[in-house]
Formats: sequence, structure tokens, C-alpha cells
Amino acid sequence: MNRKIENSDAIVPSIEDVRQAHERIKPYIHQTPILTSSYLNELSGAELYFKCENFQKAGAFKVRGASNAVFGLSDEVASRGVATHSSGNHALSLSYAAGCRGIPCTVVMPRTAPSAKKDAVLGYGGVVVECEPSTSSREETFAEVVARSGAEFVHPYNDIRVITGQATCSLELNEQVPNLDAVVAPIGGGGMISGTCLTLSNVAPGIDIFAAEPEQADDAYRSLKAGHIIADDSPNTIADGLKVPLKENTWHFVSHHVKDIQTASEAEIIAAMKLTWQRMKIIIEASCAVPLAVILKNPEVYRDKRVGVIITGGNVDMDTLPWITTDRNSQS
Amino acid sequence: MNRKIENSDAIVPSIEDVRQAHERIKPYIHQTPILTSSYLNELSGAELYFKCENFQKAGAFKVRGASNAVFGLSDEVASRGVATHSSGNHALSLSYAAGCRGIPCTVVMPRTAPSAKKDAVLGYGGVVVECEPSTSSREETFAEVVARSGAEFVHPYNDIRVITGQATCSLELNEQVPNLDAVVAPIGGGGMISGTCLTLSNVAPGIDIFAAEPEQADDAYRSLKAGHIIADDSPNTIADGLKVPLKENTWHFVSHHVKDIQTASEAEIIAAMKLTWQRMKIIIEASCAVPLAVILKNPEVYRDKRVGVIITGGNVDMDTLPWITTDRNSQS
Repeated sequence: MNRKIENSDAIVPSIEDVRQAHERIKPYIHQTPILTSSYLNELSGAELYFKCENFQKAGAFKVRGASNAVFGLSDEVASRGVATHSSGNHALSLSYAAGCRGIPCTVVMPRTAPSAKKDAVLGYGGVVVECEPSTSSREETFAEVVARSGAEFVHPYNDIRVITGQATCSLELNEQVPNLDAVVAPIGGGGMISGTCLTLSNVAPGIDIFAAEPEQADDAYRSLKAGHIIADDSPNTIADGLKVPLKENTWHFVSHHVKDIQTASEAEIIAAMKLTWQRMKIIIEASCAVPLAVILKNPEVYRDKRVGVIITGGNVDMDTLPWITTDRNSQS
Repeated sequence: MNRKIENSDAIVPSIEDVRQAHERIKPYIHQTPILTSSYLNELSGAELYFKCENFQKAGAFKVRGASNAVFGLSDEVASRGVATHSSGNHALSLSYAAGCRGIPCTVVMPRTAPSAKKDAVLGYGGVVVECEPSTSSREETFAEVVARSGAEFVHPYNDIRVITGQATCSLELNEQVPNLDAVVAPIGGGGMISGTCLTLSNVAPGIDIFAAEPEQADDAYRSLKAGHIIADDSPNTIADGLKVPLKENTWHFVSHHVKDIQTASEAEIIAAMKLTWQRMKIIIEASCAVPLAVILKNPEVYRDKRVGVIITGGNVDMDTLPWITTDRNSQS
């Protein structure tokens, strides 16, 4: 292959790269289980196979990409540590992976980020450097961190090592559930969906890949229709892992391999999240309820199909659940 | 064996009875998975193996006993249907099992019971007959139901067929996790713990069996200390599955085979429930958080041991979570 990605220095990884990544990260990740629900199958008219990355180390699939990046570094580069800017699951995951390798990890986070996220980074041995909640402050602070430490930057999703790590998820899924017709994953920056495309386009090109996105953060949906990246200014959605825009490396996979992007409203996302908690007895984030929401919204697309659904993470603030807030508001 | 239970018409079942029950109910139940958590292992100093009956059909282990009772009936008896009084998981489970066999099921429930429970019984095809929320009204209403229909009474726990069905849970656990040192299960009426005793005393008598009970409904704890059944008048606990008293059949197993009963406060139960949701990413009822609560409270008993923990069910009202109520109260 050795095909270059447009507007990027990166080369499209091969399936062999994905297999090597899987071997590299296996000691640090779980092969997560597949769960099914006869209730949700009946409701959707499809056979749904949920790949439960909410049971993953650090509570999310992001640990795959982070581990692949961290354990792929030479000893010399690794000794200077890794750094990123994120207030989400990539932050915890990079801290976890760096802790496994015994190297420093610095995460730049807005001072307004939830203290639970900061605590989780610290819990895995990482260092949090706070910035103001603005892009300029973040970039300035991050540049200082890198200049001071020489740490290796691991972008949350626009990094080929990260995408290759995320690709190991559907490598497992495709082995655990043969003969899928379709796979649905949430789309934010596009790391998971890019990994899914990378793997499935090689090992099972007949599987349709759908991305699921909040209506209120539908930049990827509009990008796919327009044929080029469109970034939202400040999207607002309960699915807070999906607010970030596509970048050149993830756009490559989305534009080449995603069959369609379907969107769901906030109410539909919250209903799908609550339904999953109630019926499947598992904790999932709002972000990973978007696939079930679009499946229930577009039954004609999925009916009688074998559908893989990627549950991306389970890190939820248990003190503020969206449907309880909704109930409170509606009572007031 | 053929040993009679004191103050009861019942004979102590054999392990062969349990194996036959397992074969009988296998088409209608899941072999539930074992989950582990490195975080909770570190916190407790023990190796904890969670037997996840929250993933069971109808959301709770109760479906094992109900299915064993329903599918053990002769065709003639079965044709008149089954009946019970319960506002908990036994109600749903009996309705589910009767639905699988295609026979009528009537559940007597106080009119004050949560509508979600009534809906669930109806959803599985059962009939709900409401009574006033008093023992006398319940008994009167239930007697009418049985007189009218000739339905077979399946008690929620003081029924040897039910206990033998629940015993299949630790039959699976003991095969899934070899060489356990101890098993901890919640205790209310004692159906699950009796089944656990029945199986383990036969197949692995070296395993210590502990029961976990809310401090605010500690009748089994006091019964074990006193050497005879003590029933609470009206216990009040968040662990609403554990409010009912022991009866002669469950007392037999508890008094002969349970090593100790440990209790936990309401705050400890709620904390263990929230911790399980946060760290294990699974929905568990307050009742099945009691074992983790007592394990964390008595580390000297469990340290360095391989401990099976029975997660009994996952049917939770998502609109009223105890820690959110607690937060609200503390703010007001």
C-alpha cells in the first residue's frame, strides 16, 4: 500500500500494522466482551452485537490508541514522556498507558474541566497542567509543556498510531461475531470510526460502516455531504465526547469508507442511554448511546441485519444523570 | 440423604436434584458471566469474582427458582397456572417462566407497588391482582385467587423447588471459578443463600459461605445468633429485596451451613452500589451491593482470599437513585 493521506504527512497503515498494534497492546488492554439483548433485538428488528469498550481498561476504547502510541515509542523518546491536551477519556487513557510503561505523562486541561477527570489522570500517575478554557491558552500552555519536557505529543485522534490502536477494537469484534452486515460507531473527532474503517475495509470489506452523531454536533454529517471538513464553532450536546471536529487523518477514513452518517436528537440520545442502562444493565456514556438511537430511528436500514454496535466508554458522572435533570426541569 | 427439614414437610434436596434442575431450566436462563475488577481487588485486598445475575433473564437470579418450579409441574397441574404474592423480582420471574411454558400466572401485589413492577409482570404475560398494602388483605386476596383458579402457589423463597433452582447459580459459579475460598451472597428471605448452601455443601464443602444483610433489616443476623428465626416487624432499608424474614426451609440451610452473617449500614450499601456502577460499569440493585459493602468493611476476613460475590439483580428504578436523593437532601 504505502498510500499517503491527503494534506497529511501520514501513510495509510496496513492491516499488518493493526495486527502488530494488537500484539503490542494486548498486555495492557482487555479483550472486551460482546453483549446482546433479546429485548433490544425485538425493539429494533435487528440482531445487535454490542462491543463493550465500557469494560475496557480506564473505562473506554481510547486506551487502545494511547497504548499503541506509548508502547511504540523508542526508549529514548519514551524517556522524555508523553503529553496531550484533552479533558476526556484520552487524558485518562494516555496517563494509564504511560503509567504502564513507567514514563511521565502530562495532560493540559482547562481549569474548568470536571475534577473527576483530573483526579482520574492523577490516579494513573499523570500530571495535570491547567490552562484557561480557550484554544489560545491551551495551545500556549501545551507548547510550553512540550518545550520544557521534550515530551512526545499524542493527539487524541488525529494521530496514525492512535487510529491504528483503535482499529484493534473491530479486529476483535470481527473475530467475536462472524458475518456482520453492518457496524455502527459514534463519531466525534473520528478516531474510533477511522480505526473501524481501517480494519474492516481490509478484513471484511462487505460490512457497511455507519457513523452516529448528535444532531447538535453534526459537523461530520455535514462534512460528508459537503465533501470536505466542516468544523462547528461550539457544538453543544450531552454526548460530550463527540464535540470535536474531524481532522485530515480521520477525514481520510471517513470520506473513503463510511457508508453514511446518521444523527440523533438530544432526547433520542438520552432515551437510548437510559434504555441501555435499564435493559442491558450496563453503564454507558451518552456518546455511545448515539448508535442505538440512530438504529432505532432508522429501522429500515438495519432490519434483519447482523449489526455490531461499538459501546465506546462508561465513564459517567453518577451525580448528574441527564434524565434525572430532565425530570427535575420538567417538574419545575 | 432424604433428610427431612425441621418444622417443614420438605425433604433436603440432593445435589442430583440441583443438577436436574439445571438441565430443566437451561433453555430459559442465561449462564451469566463472571466479571472482575482490578480496582476493587486492590481496594479489598481480595480476589473478587462477581457472578452477574443482573444479566440474567428478567434481570435477576429469581428466574432460576421460578423456572424450576414452573417446568417441574405436571401438565395437569401446570394447566391451572401458577400464582404468587410478591412485588419484587420473583413476580417478574414467575411471570416470565409461566410465559415460557404458556400457562397462566397471577401475581397478587399491593396497589401501592411501583407501576414499573406491575408493568413488567404484564409485559411477560402475567396478570396482576391488587390488594391493600397489609398482610391480611394480601392473604385474603391470594386465597381468593387460588380458590378461583386452582393455581399452584410458588412462594418467593420458602419453596424447595425455588431453592433448588437458585442452587444452580453457585453450581455455575463453582465451575466458572475453581478453588474459591469463600462466597458472599445477600440474605433476605434466604432463597439465594439457601441455594448456595445446598450446592456448595455438596460439591465444595471447604468454601466458607457468608451472608450479607442490611443493618436496618438484620433479622437473619439476629436469628443466627439466637439459634431460631426472628422476624422484624417492618424493616426499612434501601435494599428492598432484603426486607422479608427467613422461613423454616431457608432457616434450615442458613443455620446448618452459613459461616457468618455480616451487616452494613445504609450509607455503606449506597456507597458500594455507586462504586460498583462507577468502577465495574454495571447496573446492580442496592440489595446486591450489600456483599461488597461487608467485604470492604471486614477486610481481615477476606484478605488474600478468592471470593465469589453474587450480584443478584439489576432491576433499578433509574429515576430515583439513592445517592442523588441523598445529595438533594443534604443540599436542602
